Amino acid sequence: MTRRLDATLYLVTDTLLCAPRSVPAVVAAAVAGGVTAVQVRDKTASRRDLLALTRAVQAVLAPTPHVPLFVNDAVDVALVAGADGVHVGQDDLPAEEVRALLGPDALVGVSTGSDAELDAVLALPGGTVDLVGIGPVWSTPTKPDAGESLEPAGVRALAARARAAGLVAVAIGGIHSSNASLVTGVDGICVVSDVCAAADPAEAARLLREEMGR
Amino acid sequence: MTRRLDATLYLVTDTLLCAPRSVPAVVAAAVAGGVTAVQVRDKTASRRDLLALTRAVQAVLAPTPHVPLFVNDAVDVALVAGADGVHVGQDDLPAEEVRALLGPDALVGVSTGSDAELDAVLALPGGTVDLVGIGPVWSTPTKPDAGESLEPAGVRALAARARAAGLVAVAIGGIHSSNASLVTGVDGICVVSDVCAAADPAEAARLLREEMGR
Repeated sequence: MTRRLDATLYLVTDTLLCAPRSVPAVVAAAVAGGVTAVQVRDKTASRRDLLALTRAVQAVLAPTPHVPLFVNDAVDVALVAGADGVHVGQDDLPAEEVRALLGPDALVGVSTGSDAELDAVLALPGGTVDLVGIGPVWSTPTKPDAGESLEPAGVRALAARARAAGLVAVAIGGIHSSNASLVTGVDGICVVSDVCAAADPAEAARLLREEMGR
Repeated sequence: MTRRLDATLYLVTDTLLCAPRSVPAVVAAAVAGGVTAVQVRDKTASRRDLLALTRAVQAVLAPTPHVPLFVNDAVDVALVAGADGVHVGQDDLPAEEVRALLGPDALVGVSTGSDAELDAVLALPGGTVDLVGIGPVWSTPTKPDAGESLEPAGVRALAARARAAGLVAVAIGGIHSSNASLVTGVDGICVVSDVCAAADPAEAARLLREEMGR
């Protein structure tokens, strides 16, 4: 069951890259520029700080309820905050456990970087997972532990399988406005540094949307 | 509402200190030696690894259902595993949120190191918190970010207030068999390295119980 989810331009936050601006300030600008989905990711924050960050981002997203907020990894934080969903990687809680904790109405995303990882997602009962993040497209300094680069052709192949199964497929890893137009066959792209580290996050998002339209 | 909880000798696990033995192996020996409650703590493990560790410890505790298993910090992991409770520090999710997620039958513990922190716990609705960990009694290398040492007299004063409110009070921080008899006025003591790093964890637990009886 695929829920209504526009993942055209999916921002994953990085607290350090946003600094000295706050994450919520960058998110607000990015959404004004065309970001359609947001994931709060901060692997080093305590759960209490992550909860506060999630709530602060929820506050700036309140005027745009069509922009869903995912929490990376921390299902408990998402439950307390009432976030729209959770995104898990291969080291996080299994997707079926996340779905069981969050209930049927939440959004569940899973990172996949190979046919085997996608196979595992596709073997789950329908409705367990809504979205797969496919990557890394290219290597990226913001996630040095990510697997080997898939390149656009590898992403396209995995995305085709995921989309055939009714999942939303987004590409992630090393995507910037300069190469966004090379990433095709997906429902959307995820960016971290191209928006979080931009001098003007709204303009960066606008540029990405423009390049994706080419 | 205080649940049945014997916290006389409360073991907090440390994966590195247990190595090369597995944490479950050390827990099994420690319980045989007299440990009455266990908390799985591993701040560096991924949630998936922490879930696996929690389940492995649950398996060795299955024959001793009177020994409760707490998970440190990770409420989501505790929910998935069906652990008996969660212990949170001052940087973790707030106790009232933990209670709401876990429901009325779980055990909730909170770390407190000052009158102000205990005040905050005592201000919560009755039944929110079952147990307070009071410390550090002495400074300890296993938790270098812990606050100032309370010394036994400081622990006694905080424990008296907590126990008057119906909470179980345990002392933590730098407690070993050589100084355990100095810690009084509490329902129990928590140990990490004295058991996890012991050549013979069962014997270490027995020695601690013996010293506590003096």
